[in-house]
Amino acid sequence: MKRERKPSTALVPAPVVLLSVAGHDKEKPNIITLAWAGTVCSEPPMLSVAIRPSRHSYQLVNASREFVVNIPRADQLHLVDLAGTWSGAEHDKFAELGLTARPAQHVAAPLIEECPINIECLVRHQLDLGAHDLYLAEIAAVHYDEDVLDAGGRLRTSALSLFALVDNEYWSLGERIGAYGMAVEAADAAG
Amino acid sequence: MKRERKPSTALVPAPVVLLSVAGHDKEKPNIITLAWAGTVCSEPPMLSVAIRPSRHSYQLVNASREFVVNIPRADQLHLVDLAGTWSGAEHDKFAELGLTARPAQHVAAPLIEECPINIECLVRHQLDLGAHDLYLAEIAAVHYDEDVLDAGGRLRTSALSLFALVDNEYWSLGERIGAYGMAVEAADAAG
Repeated sequence: MKRERKPSTALVPAPVVLLSVAGHDKEKPNIITLAWAGTVCSEPPMLSVAIRPSRHSYQLVNASREFVVNIPRADQLHLVDLAGTWSGAEHDKFAELGLTARPAQHVAAPLIEECPINIECLVRHQLDLGAHDLYLAEIAAVHYDEDVLDAGGRLRTSALSLFALVDNEYWSLGERIGAYGMAVEAADAAG
Repeated sequence: MKRERKPSTALVPAPVVLLSVAGHDKEKPNIITLAWAGTVCSEPPMLSVAIRPSRHSYQLVNASREFVVNIPRADQLHLVDLAGTWSGAEHDKFAELGLTARPAQHVAAPLIEECPINIECLVRHQLDLGAHDLYLAEIAAVHYDEDVLDAGGRLRTSALSLFALVDNEYWSLGERIGAYGMAVEAADAAG
């Protein structure tokens, strides 16, 4: 049996990222936690993030047109949650959360040193969709902690300790259950 | 130590969805597996999906401007993988994957009956970003299997058996590790 409900943001799971952005004028850089994010193009590699205009980082992203998307580990969940509820107008989040702003290579926004993946982004499009503005950004570079890459340069996913958001709850990733293309390979082998 | 790498689609984890779309003219409806998807706005509720122009479903979405995003369970991984590699030009995916096309309420595209969440979508914007076209779609209704909702209407996430894509591998969701706002509540309780 199916139950129909009114429209809602029902797509699950959602990634959880820390977006870092340069300060405007002489302000300090800020951090905001976002779950409305996703990959939008492979070539050029691009991602989207949605930000409410009421958020402090909204003005900062509009001023600089650049940001870094940092992927946190599950053991950073406490500060991820704080960064999503505190406002940058009232908190120096880098200092108060004990995080290190490391200079990026292609953008003015800093990397969050303690996050295992840092994605440097340049805004290409901005759309006012309603409650959120959507930013479509080209990826300029990606930085990985050495310990999340294996000798061949492949991602060691279990070392990342990833988590995701489902219906306002944080859920850890469990185990590897397959690889893209496995079903076709199995069919080819069988037939 | 950080290692910088060239730009890539590094945002993880990504959701894995089955997009169903009505057939054009007298064609049958089709299904395509996508991971480049995300929520883009809360009000109105909207999501994005990215589709390569070479895919059969690209023409179908362009013709109808409507689709359904269906969230699969981990035990459907085999057919999810096949739906992502087969082409709708050569396969009747509903029939060959043993899936049921159930009429939707607001769009011509069918729901996939066997998926626990079905999100009816109306395309509002389409952007050519390069390798992919991005569709921004308003959510018209959401359908849930009764067994994934509790008595209060909240999502029973563990009953969904969700999974996600990380670097071309499928990973199951593990366990609940927290809830949005928990860190601020803990700080308030502490004083």
